[in-house]
Amino acid sequence: MIVDKMTVIGLGLIGGSICSAVKKYGLAGEVVGFDTDSGAREYAEKNGFVDNCLESLNQKNDSGLVVVATYVDRIAETVREIAPYLNKGCIITDVGSVKLDVVESVESFLDRDLIFIGSHPIAGSEKPGIENSDPNLFKSCNAIITPSENTDEEFIDFISNFWRAIGSDVVRMDPALHDKIFAYVSHLPHVAAYALVNTLSSSDIENIFSYSGGGLKDYTRIASSSPEMWKTIFMQNKESLLECIRNFKNNLELIESAIEEENLNNLQAILEKAQKNKLSQ
Amino acid sequence: MIVDKMTVIGLGLIGGSICSAVKKYGLAGEVVGFDTDSGAREYAEKNGFVDNCLESLNQKNDSGLVVVATYVDRIAETVREIAPYLNKGCIITDVGSVKLDVVESVESFLDRDLIFIGSHPIAGSEKPGIENSDPNLFKSCNAIITPSENTDEEFIDFISNFWRAIGSDVVRMDPALHDKIFAYVSHLPHVAAYALVNTLSSSDIENIFSYSGGGLKDYTRIASSSPEMWKTIFMQNKESLLECIRNFKNNLELIESAIEEENLNNLQAILEKAQKNKLSQ
Repeated sequence: MIVDKMTVIGLGLIGGSICSAVKKYGLAGEVVGFDTDSGAREYAEKNGFVDNCLESLNQKNDSGLVVVATYVDRIAETVREIAPYLNKGCIITDVGSVKLDVVESVESFLDRDLIFIGSHPIAGSEKPGIENSDPNLFKSCNAIITPSENTDEEFIDFISNFWRAIGSDVVRMDPALHDKIFAYVSHLPHVAAYALVNTLSSSDIENIFSYSGGGLKDYTRIASSSPEMWKTIFMQNKESLLECIRNFKNNLELIESAIEEENLNNLQAILEKAQKNKLSQ
Repeated sequence: MIVDKMTVIGLGLIGGSICSAVKKYGLAGEVVGFDTDSGAREYAEKNGFVDNCLESLNQKNDSGLVVVATYVDRIAETVREIAPYLNKGCIITDVGSVKLDVVESVESFLDRDLIFIGSHPIAGSEKPGIENSDPNLFKSCNAIITPSENTDEEFIDFISNFWRAIGSDVVRMDPALHDKIFAYVSHLPHVAAYALVNTLSSSDIENIFSYSGGGLKDYTRIASSSPEMWKTIFMQNKESLLECIRNFKNNLELIESAIEEENLNNLQAILEKAQKNKLSQ
């Protein structure tokens, strides 16, 4: 057990999986849940993911750990809402896919007797919702934490131990660098998949998705991810993501030009460069 | 057994898998192989994929079926090379991912006493070469055939039976429509994956591929496909593919603009459209 009581706000896939992992490994004496959706609260209670659910965040809360697992556009506001009701020394973290805005925003208003350390567990699925929760979701995945320069090491250790206890490797990272990296490795691939699927569906070919050629299934799977969630991620990481999209368009145009000009040497070099990068992983 | 003797030209992943499937199901009395690479020929002989290999295509060949499994830019020339040595009534097919150029080209020079029917089995792997062959590669996949209007039904039946005998469902299609469809469902996804991987590697982030966020692995896998093969596919399907790339760039720009303008409603609608298309499959 690492904490007497903890609160998980946002009982979706990630929040629900955190609850069930905490229960599985016995990490908290009591797990309290909250979600604006009463169906998610009921599911969490009925299935033993939580001991009980809050009806509202505006009530005294003596948790030692609060995990905010809402969409990224709601994290800072959620922390602002619950903060006045928390005990001194409570550690707050989140699970958002974008970090800089949240970290800067929370640090701008949070009382010094509460501690916020941003987290981003690199785990998920196209299938959202608490009903797809899995206590093993975080096993063998990286959990990135983005403490600020002023964060005490003891709190960093606490959060690190929490993620390790549910199976993750902890990676410490600057929030701005985090956002730049994940614009490239996660947000851009999602933009590309959404755009590709829409390209196919705007063609005049009937039942085009029934011709599943090489690789198409991966794109349609990625593009089946929640629009509500990804919309907020894209917006929160606007500047980094726009830079990625511009670079992606440039790289597309390099291929387009090589094909247009029938420049086989150039085309071969471009494709080889991509293939080599895969092989060097 | 559906033929006394057959020749497979091009002993790569597809050619090798065809040989091993034909052997597995006993479809030919004798299987003869050819490849310009002596290593592939030796591998095929040693592993019993073929009964023997030709040293050259320029020798009398009494096969009833010839399968050309070279890269798409070599198919028509290969047919032109072997045709003078084949017996009247020999049926020739191929396995190329692009059909119109090959079909038109072969029909322009082929003697009337030989029969060419284009094929495209929708099967493959990022791992090329005869050493990755699999007799079950064509099981439960579609084999598209693109006979011309003048092709006798008896020959279409023969080729259809051949693909069915190694486990595929046969789909008959106009070669131009085939190329348009596969530009969208296969060639464009490969272009996008190559461009995306190159976008990441041209960023200034060290070891960027070690941060495997959601979906990235699918792209790197697709982009690990053979540059030599895909270069020729892209070039053979130039016009259809360039149209797809233009449409893809437009769809990317719709997302880019929505993010830039912080138009959440529009962004939501775009992502929902993509998600729905997946769901309607």
